[in-house]
Amino acid sequence: MNHEKFMKEAIRIAERGIKEGQTPFGAVIVKNNRIIAKAHNTVFKDNDPTAHAEINAIRKASKKLKTIDLKGCVIYSTCEPCPMCFSAIHWANIDGIYYGASIRDAEKLGFRELRISNKRMKSLSKKTVKLKIVGGVMKEECRKMMKKWKGKTY
Amino acid sequence: MNHEKFMKEAIRIAERGIKEGQTPFGAVIVKNNRIIAKAHNTVFKDNDPTAHAEINAIRKASKKLKTIDLKGCVIYSTCEPCPMCFSAIHWANIDGIYYGASIRDAEKLGFRELRISNKRMKSLSKKTVKLKIVGGVMKEECRKMMKKWKGKTY
Repeated sequence: MNHEKFMKEAIRIAERGIKEGQTPFGAVIVKNNRIIAKAHNTVFKDNDPTAHAEINAIRKASKKLKTIDLKGCVIYSTCEPCPMCFSAIHWANIDGIYYGASIRDAEKLGFRELRISNKRMKSLSKKTVKLKIVGGVMKEECRKMMKKWKGKTY
Repeated sequence: MNHEKFMKEAIRIAERGIKEGQTPFGAVIVKNNRIIAKAHNTVFKDNDPTAHAEINAIRKASKKLKTIDLKGCVIYSTCEPCPMCFSAIHWANIDGIYYGASIRDAEKLGFRELRISNKRMKSLSKKTVKLKIVGGVMKEECRKMMKKWKGKTY
């Protein structure tokens, strides 16, 4: 299954982040069945509180495709995007979100999450009606990866 | 009044953005009554859908203070932060938000906003309970500046 293939890649990049002392989150952006950007969280490395995996991947994808309009792209994230990342996905006009673990799983690790589901976020704009959201893709593998991480939260 | 002084600076940077072909949004971050970062929206210039004024200002402030923890700082924004920017403010641990125009004002210009107020966003986490939110600071001046802008939306 392609969803699994792309989520595995998101897990792989998250694991690379863990090795580099970052937090356990990875994201991959796909267009026409090809990965165009992948990133892990670099909040600590870049000293940037906005450098979540999804934000980093969106910035890379926009640079690569030379457009702020990522229509035709979907994003795979090892964890349900926080509202910052969800909104960035909205602004970037991405077609769909596939995520593994949930915001609650990140909260359990100690991250001080804003508790709002992506489905609720989706309801906030007429423009997000068409946004496809699929949660729980390889959820257990994503959770397992997150649990291997022992670092400081923020 | 200091609030007016800092909001005027946010309007000034937004106006500079307009002159440079950017969208009409500016933000200033203040610590101990001193401006430590200011930025306008650079989505078009940087080809980056996440480059809202508040996000840019947070990145600059973190670089300047060499920390992701902006406790003790407040942010002035010419327009109510969108949920992406609100969440970034939350992650950056900023103490307060002072904004001028509202998300609805930005929507009236044609921006496809996610409709959720900062007060509602604040209710999403126990950790944001202490976050001070003051809307309508120099609202008319902010709206006037926004209305002078004639550019493309996203």
